[in-house]
Amino acid sequence: MTNPVRIIPLGGLGEVGKNMMAIEYGDDIVVIDAGVMFPKQDMLGVDLVLPDTTYLVENAERVRAVLITHGHEDHTGALPYVLRDLHVPVYAPPLARDLVEVKLREHSGVGRYELHEVHPGDSLTFGEITAEYFRVCHSIPDACGIALHTPAGLIVHSGDFKIDHTPVDGHQTDLQRLAALGREGVLLLLSDSTYAEVPGYTPSEQIVGVALDRALAEAPGRVLVATFASLIARVQQVVDAAVKSGRKVAPAGRSMVNNVAMAVAKGYITAPPGTIVTLEELASLPPERQTIVLTGAQGEPLAVLARIANRSSRDIEIQKDDTVVISASTIPGNETLVAHVIDNLTRQGARVLTRRNTPGIHVQGHASQEELKLMLGLIKPKYFVPIHGEYRMLAAHAELAESVGVERDHIFVIEDGDVLEVEDAGGAVVDHVPGGHVYVDGLRLWDVRSAVLRDRRKLSRDGIVVVVVPFDNATGEALGDPEIVTSGFVDAEASGEMLDRARTLVAEALRAPSKPLDEASINGRVRQALAGFFRDETGRRPMIVPLPIEM
Amino acid sequence: MTNPVRIIPLGGLGEVGKNMMAIEYGDDIVVIDAGVMFPKQDMLGVDLVLPDTTYLVENAERVRAVLITHGHEDHTGALPYVLRDLHVPVYAPPLARDLVEVKLREHSGVGRYELHEVHPGDSLTFGEITAEYFRVCHSIPDACGIALHTPAGLIVHSGDFKIDHTPVDGHQTDLQRLAALGREGVLLLLSDSTYAEVPGYTPSEQIVGVALDRALAEAPGRVLVATFASLIARVQQVVDAAVKSGRKVAPAGRSMVNNVAMAVAKGYITAPPGTIVTLEELASLPPERQTIVLTGAQGEPLAVLARIANRSSRDIEIQKDDTVVISASTIPGNETLVAHVIDNLTRQGARVLTRRNTPGIHVQGHASQEELKLMLGLIKPKYFVPIHGEYRMLAAHAELAESVGVERDHIFVIEDGDVLEVEDAGGAVVDHVPGGHVYVDGLRLWDVRSAVLRDRRKLSRDGIVVVVVPFDNATGEALGDPEIVTSGFVDAEASGEMLDRARTLVAEALRAPSKPLDEASINGRVRQALAGFFRDETGRRPMIVPLPIEM
Repeated sequence: MTNPVRIIPLGGLGEVGKNMMAIEYGDDIVVIDAGVMFPKQDMLGVDLVLPDTTYLVENAERVRAVLITHGHEDHTGALPYVLRDLHVPVYAPPLARDLVEVKLREHSGVGRYELHEVHPGDSLTFGEITAEYFRVCHSIPDACGIALHTPAGLIVHSGDFKIDHTPVDGHQTDLQRLAALGREGVLLLLSDSTYAEVPGYTPSEQIVGVALDRALAEAPGRVLVATFASLIARVQQVVDAAVKSGRKVAPAGRSMVNNVAMAVAKGYITAPPGTIVTLEELASLPPERQTIVLTGAQGEPLAVLARIANRSSRDIEIQKDDTVVISASTIPGNETLVAHVIDNLTRQGARVLTRRNTPGIHVQGHASQEELKLMLGLIKPKYFVPIHGEYRMLAAHAELAESVGVERDHIFVIEDGDVLEVEDAGGAVVDHVPGGHVYVDGLRLWDVRSAVLRDRRKLSRDGIVVVVVPFDNATGEALGDPEIVTSGFVDAEASGEMLDRARTLVAEALRAPSKPLDEASINGRVRQALAGFFRDETGRRPMIVPLPIEM
Repeated sequence: MTNPVRIIPLGGLGEVGKNMMAIEYGDDIVVIDAGVMFPKQDMLGVDLVLPDTTYLVENAERVRAVLITHGHEDHTGALPYVLRDLHVPVYAPPLARDLVEVKLREHSGVGRYELHEVHPGDSLTFGEITAEYFRVCHSIPDACGIALHTPAGLIVHSGDFKIDHTPVDGHQTDLQRLAALGREGVLLLLSDSTYAEVPGYTPSEQIVGVALDRALAEAPGRVLVATFASLIARVQQVVDAAVKSGRKVAPAGRSMVNNVAMAVAKGYITAPPGTIVTLEELASLPPERQTIVLTGAQGEPLAVLARIANRSSRDIEIQKDDTVVISASTIPGNETLVAHVIDNLTRQGARVLTRRNTPGIHVQGHASQEELKLMLGLIKPKYFVPIHGEYRMLAAHAELAESVGVERDHIFVIEDGDVLEVEDAGGAVVDHVPGGHVYVDGLRLWDVRSAVLRDRRKLSRDGIVVVVVPFDNATGEALGDPEIVTSGFVDAEASGEMLDRARTLVAEALRAPSKPLDEASINGRVRQALAGFFRDETGRRPMIVPLPIEM
């Protein structure tokens, strides 16, 4: 008699299970990935978004390991935080391990940690769960999926994947092993839904190589290629194209410089000696022999590309005949930032190549619909849970699964914090645990419902008015005139007359005959005197903060 | 001996000349369009963005007219503001005139205005300039371009256009007239660059008709079609599709209800009697006979579609078998809003059809590259200025013009506020006038450089700390302890201990031996005591506002 397995996606910020997933059988919990999300535009001032690990911390004695599928931030970036509360070993494929190590060293306060390298084909046993890594293609080398052998059955987690028959690093998705797992019989497939809305096949990374070769060959001067610092395979393609067109390559941007150094040292990037140089060395060459690979493809205001666009980079200025290649897709929400960067680069005379005007200059790292069907066809799971996607993507993936023969009531579209129990006889969401996210704001962690963020939203729209009312606590009378200070509300100079009237209104309200003043009555009278007045005068509703000062 | 013409784009918020353009010859200025832009995400609390009309107001005695090309908000929405300062007649094609009239009546304070209807083929003479309207296709009926006959030569302004051989209203872009103007000899073409980066041809609106027919025919239950309230031709297509599939149509959303009522009354929308009904009447029909056409296709939080998605609409709830059609493209910057709405609709069980999963469900209203080349080929201008686009689009359009034979140094990529002088012998930017934009914030107009918006940005990231210091002006000593109030900075409860320490730090700083306290020294000491302390404690830099209170 076996127990059901329990599947709990945690903290994907709407992209279910993207950052973290708990899978448990009996007394054993393994955690897959521990990533961060970047804040959305309404998360004012928030620096990072972490998965909520309350459930794991409460069940810490049952958590056996964190299994990392690949080295991207959204799958590894929360480790420095998670490992403070959860002292468990971490397993990761080679490149991911190296990237995680760099990251953990950068954070003080992590304490001792246990970080192991694991290779495709390796199996690790944690109590009644045996985790087997298998190779998939993604936009970073050493990406893996994980098969979890449990007494209840076999669970396959796809990781982030695509099916690329000609990947840059030569390592294809292990279709043989997937087929073998399928033959063995898979209880449940958890599969990447990021591109479940996109018909057809995702093109091979080879396409990008061809497009980059051509861009670098045809460019009359320097070429600046912007991409993600962790997109190591893309950097290799830039290096290859540079070699073909007689160019050298310099990295720019702190994380690009660091990652390229690590990747060259560890052999993830290979190049003829002397190909990869520093920016200073590069500058001594004629422009048509220069290639710079740099960060900032999302328009991030502090990254190199945006600084070049704003003419605020110390090292790099756009010059005649420069070509800028943006070899990345734009993360939803960053479109206006990227457009602004492109405008400013164009204004300075650069020719800017993007996915939009140069097909093939980037391809995504995730499977499109036909590849997702192939995964479903190889695995032939009894039950299916779409993961790694926003709700509409999960719904699209669920439809795909149904179209290739998974029974409709064997498909579970679940959300972060849902506890799904699955066993051979069936499955159901049986519970809900805290599965949302936690904000990193400076040095603090905020709960999502924090009043601080609600206040920031209000301040950002209408500003604040602080009304200081000194009063005599003994007599209950106001002392002198109230003081008003505003920020983000009106131009204090141009609105001096209106603020004088506001002060008068408050003073009158405080003098109105009635009981002696106390804090509560001052608060009430100030708000009552000003809320309607400001709304009528300005059309806005600033936050009004009365501040009675007892003297 | 003639003068040059002067071309001055004004206030497109990066989309040059989109909202307004001044064209002058000698003593005569005509203004083309007077539109608004919607605020970008960093314009915190701003409601609308207007063109800066300083130049026109300063030269008011020379401004002869505002000529509206078509009825969209980004070409007409600033009229209620512009006409307060500029008392000139407005000319507009029939539908635009009707929409403008509705808008001007909604705004008090416009005063008397003079609004004329003009038809394609009409010519209007303003001093030495004669303006001739010609018909173009766009996503609204009665869209026009304008040819300006001046002693310096003929200027052609394309308006917003596409070349659609099968438009919904049956009126094609007047290629004959464009060709005749080209034969006459055109000094300067100003042409729409919105889709200058997009290869090929923009599909005909007919494609949308086919897609809508199919969507409404196949939908098992109700169909909710979200689009722009001013996209009158699209509403007609929805009505046509509804009739074919035995459905009735009800508008929802204030501006949709108003525009449909006006368009039906004026004959812009035609339908068999009884086809267009109210929501209440519609509700009595079986779901498969119901179609709702509604606002909110951009995910606007206050529009009907978002309220349905949030389950906060009083009138409409998603029910089983509902199909939602989003028949619009997403304006850059709104992507995450729209995605969120789609997720929430999908979560409630609706099937959502978008451009992405249903080709043809929307086509853009602007010409793609091949149509832009056709316009250039018919007009054969001596000089060319790309308009209506962000810088990269203008640059792409400039390249297209060069590719079809316009000489490189006859192409002027200019920006808002640039004064371009063109005459037969050549052209050059000779001056720059205030050509940016002005923010509408509640009832006020802000200058772009307003400190209010800078403060809001700071408040939105780090919050505010107000430190009240009562002091005796005679002795220069602080009275009692300082009071600290914060908003948007830290959770005041959880951080009570830190704020107590902050208060102590301020008190100590004020007691430090030295000269008697005055406002300046209090301000300095408070800031010095707290800035580093808060940064170290929280990792954030709140706005610190010392508030000395003389007693």
